[in-house]
Amino acid sequence: MPIRPAGRSMDMSRRKRRQEEVRAMAKFMDVHRGMKGVTADQLREAHRADLAIEGDESVHFEHAWADPESGIVYCLSEAPSAEAVQRIHERAGHPADEVHAVPLEV
Amino acid sequence: MPIRPAGRSMDMSRRKRRQEEVRAMAKFMDVHRGMKGVTADQLREAHRADLAIEGDESVHFEHAWADPESGIVYCLSEAPSAEAVQRIHERAGHPADEVHAVPLEV
Repeated sequence: MPIRPAGRSMDMSRRKRRQEEVRAMAKFMDVHRGMKGVTADQLREAHRADLAIEGDESVHFEHAWADPESGIVYCLSEAPSAEAVQRIHERAGHPADEVHAVPLEV
Repeated sequence: MPIRPAGRSMDMSRRKRRQEEVRAMAKFMDVHRGMKGVTADQLREAHRADLAIEGDESVHFEHAWADPESGIVYCLSEAPSAEAVQRIHERAGHPADEVHAVPLEV
């Protein structure tokens, strides 16, 4: 009777855990356009709406920067995928125009 | 004979200095496109080239994030103006496609 190597499943689950950690650590920058005249209060409120539900998708929005003049907002997040970032932004009422993984950072 | 108040010129220069400090605190996000396949080493080297000369324009590049797949690089800086940010990037050999003041942040 073949004996299942004792270490095998541990290695597998360790590998899987590592993959999940790597996935959870991915960073994303997303861009919203057409926000001309956005105010500090509106930016804070939009960010609060994201934070209120981000846990549903294991997303965390770390920062947002806005240029009221050109109407561009940038959001930096940690998330399992670009789709997860977008789903939170959509549910919060402000879908992003672009979501980019940014695996490199200095 | 009117006496010039002794404190006047000091106040003026102090006010001017404060205005310069406020101006120096403005944040900027700039965007570089067409960087498909950019590597961690290339990003680090480009950032190092900025840091080496940024003091000439009172600019400080705080972070850069890159997406090798879409070829987009975002740089966050503190600077006296968008023009100062661009002058440093140009001299370092990588002019930005867009530079936006981002006076709002959460």
